[in-house]
Amino acid sequence: MSRPEGPAANPWSGPESWGSPRERTTTWYDPALIPARSAGLDGLAVMQAVRDGELPPAPIAALLGMRLVEAERGRVVFECTPEESMYNPIGVVHGGVACTLADSAAGCAVHTTLDAGWGYTSIDITVNYLRAVTLDSGVLRATGTVTKPGRRVALAAAEIHDGAGRLVATASSNCFIIQPSG
Amino acid sequence: MSRPEGPAANPWSGPESWGSPRERTTTWYDPALIPARSAGLDGLAVMQAVRDGELPPAPIAALLGMRLVEAERGRVVFECTPEESMYNPIGVVHGGVACTLADSAAGCAVHTTLDAGWGYTSIDITVNYLRAVTLDSGVLRATGTVTKPGRRVALAAAEIHDGAGRLVATASSNCFIIQPSG
Amino acid sequence: MSRPEGPAANPWSGPESWGSPRERTTTWYDPALIPARSAGLDGLAVMQAVRDGELPPAPIAALLGMRLVEAERGRVVFECTPEESMYNPIGVVHGGVACTLADSAAGCAVHTTLDAGWGYTSIDITVNYLRAVTLDSGVLRATGTVTKPGRRVALAAAEIHDGAGRLVATASSNCFIIQPSG
Amino acid sequence: MSRPEGPAANPWSGPESWGSPRERTTTWYDPALIPARSAGLDGLAVMQAVRDGELPPAPIAALLGMRLVEAERGRVVFECTPEESMYNPIGVVHGGVACTLADSAAGCAVHTTLDAGWGYTSIDITVNYLRAVTLDSGVLRATGTVTKPGRRVALAAAEIHDGAGRLVATASSNCFIIQPSG
Repeated sequence: MSRPEGPAANPWSGPESWGSPRERTTTWYDPALIPARSAGLDGLAVMQAVRDGELPPAPIAALLGMRLVEAERGRVVFECTPEESMYNPIGVVHGGVACTLADSAAGCAVHTTLDAGWGYTSIDITVNYLRAVTLDSGVLRATGTVTKPGRRVALAAAEIHDGAGRLVATASSNCFIIQPSG
Repeated sequence: MSRPEGPAANPWSGPESWGSPRERTTTWYDPALIPARSAGLDGLAVMQAVRDGELPPAPIAALLGMRLVEAERGRVVFECTPEESMYNPIGVVHGGVACTLADSAAGCAVHTTLDAGWGYTSIDITVNYLRAVTLDSGVLRATGTVTKPGRRVALAAAEIHDGAGRLVATASSNCFIIQPSG
Repeated sequence: MSRPEGPAANPWSGPESWGSPRERTTTWYDPALIPARSAGLDGLAVMQAVRDGELPPAPIAALLGMRLVEAERGRVVFECTPEESMYNPIGVVHGGVACTLADSAAGCAVHTTLDAGWGYTSIDITVNYLRAVTLDSGVLRATGTVTKPGRRVALAAAEIHDGAGRLVATASSNCFIIQPSG
Repeated sequence: MSRPEGPAANPWSGPESWGSPRERTTTWYDPALIPARSAGLDGLAVMQAVRDGELPPAPIAALLGMRLVEAERGRVVFECTPEESMYNPIGVVHGGVACTLADSAAGCAVHTTLDAGWGYTSIDITVNYLRAVTLDSGVLRATGTVTKPGRRVALAAAEIHDGAGRLVATASSNCFIIQPSG
């Protein structure tokens, strides 16, 4: 058995005593499609096009099974179904999945407030973990809302609930707003 | 074209104008193997067994291409090669990948300080994004260090550098320490 | 003129060109009074006794002009009137005042959920600054609410509004819950 | 005994059973002096003038006994002597004092990297509390360092040590950089 050195080394191959490996295949489309086809649209229109399947989801959304299901001005909702492929070594879904959902929800909520030609980049995120996520958690819903829009810096919050409606994580994220160039 | 509703719906199928989908297959082993085979080991021994390939990597590590490459008492290093499958809709690797790397590095650094039978769970994480990550970033290195060990709460920090040695993110994470039961 | 080396060195004495120094006198009571007189009371009763003036305010509350004005289970409100003595070198009230208010509001909200004999200590706080505070801001109101109570770790949030009802800061804080000893 | 409603109501007057009130007088100078006398100076020169007593300390520095004792490009140190007037109701120095020190150290470190005419404002701060501060802690030293300077957003870190050299708090703070107007 050897330690693989990169993505090309997937699938990992372990000794027989590890049992059979499990497998999952992800597909996605050229990530350049979204900005290319978003030209001239304001942020809300872009998010709604992604929600409605008129634009492809981001590759990371396919990788982590995140689906944008609601998008209005200042508020979006992502859903995500926990899978075994997201588990950490201590027997629950890795906290990074909640971070990714929260970052997406917060960032996309900010995106819905931007005029055509404006952009954003995340400055930071703070995520509070409240409850472990497992395969029994049901579909996660991550709601992002804009706490304060801005022309320079915007603040957004995210809350993630499990399928039983219990709060599993909260987050806040600051985004730097990028003015149209030229 | 229809919006898929869950992981079973992968692969996404888009219209022809989206071009050909790209594809990646991930494999992993039963996540219950790690705790089962860690019984009686202290945290450092567990981390070193994962580093050396004597225990399987966590499923999330396979999914995001994270490799534990260094583990000593109070300090671990993960590597990760950016891939297109990690991209967000704005043309760079999703910030959630940095969060996941940082959470792993911080949490595993805390894990290396724990005696056999003790556990931990993350309370929160704050991640500061300093530089966009792209396919050109080279191999990311996430170094986790324990700022303050503890028998109740421990604090760890993480720094992520790109292949050129530039700092791309910093993080701090508090972990709740779980005493052996019984 | 010489640089003073400690609190005993107050009042600072500057050259004549700095104009007349301004002065403020703070008074407080022995901080040991509050825990001594709280024995046997649950957290809500302690907070309500402080609110009603039956227990002295904490010294820091006097120093920064913070007044506990509402206290119910899981929610408290502090008020604070900005003063020139709180200014930073860039011409607005120092952000630390918002941090202190937010930390008080979050921590005291957690305190209201604790049974007699239980205690807490803050693990961390994240404060987002949304709007500068000045002498024209009016009375600040900091509302602390418990996001998730807990027997080991609790999470609370705080929001600070100015006298015109505008949001000036948000915060989240994790608290470690201390079980009764013995 | 009545609940005072504002700073004018200081000194608080409690019943005899509270014992004698303690008192502290703070003095400061017009906070407008610092920006007025900083015109044309770069950030490092301003910080060094404050350090050397050529400019008055900020009012908040007098109120909380904070003294800027070191200032070089990208790094500053504040000292602060804990006093009873900073105590919270649970018998230790209020966490807000650490927040204020950390915010000052981080912000002033960023300030030392700015050219004349540029300014900054804090976006947020995350403070991790590691050890309680009391009158026995000795002189606190808060060291602020710039993790990443920037022309739009800068990140700084702060560490606070007690008189025995033990780490009592760590912090990170993002600052928005304000370009010269006109």
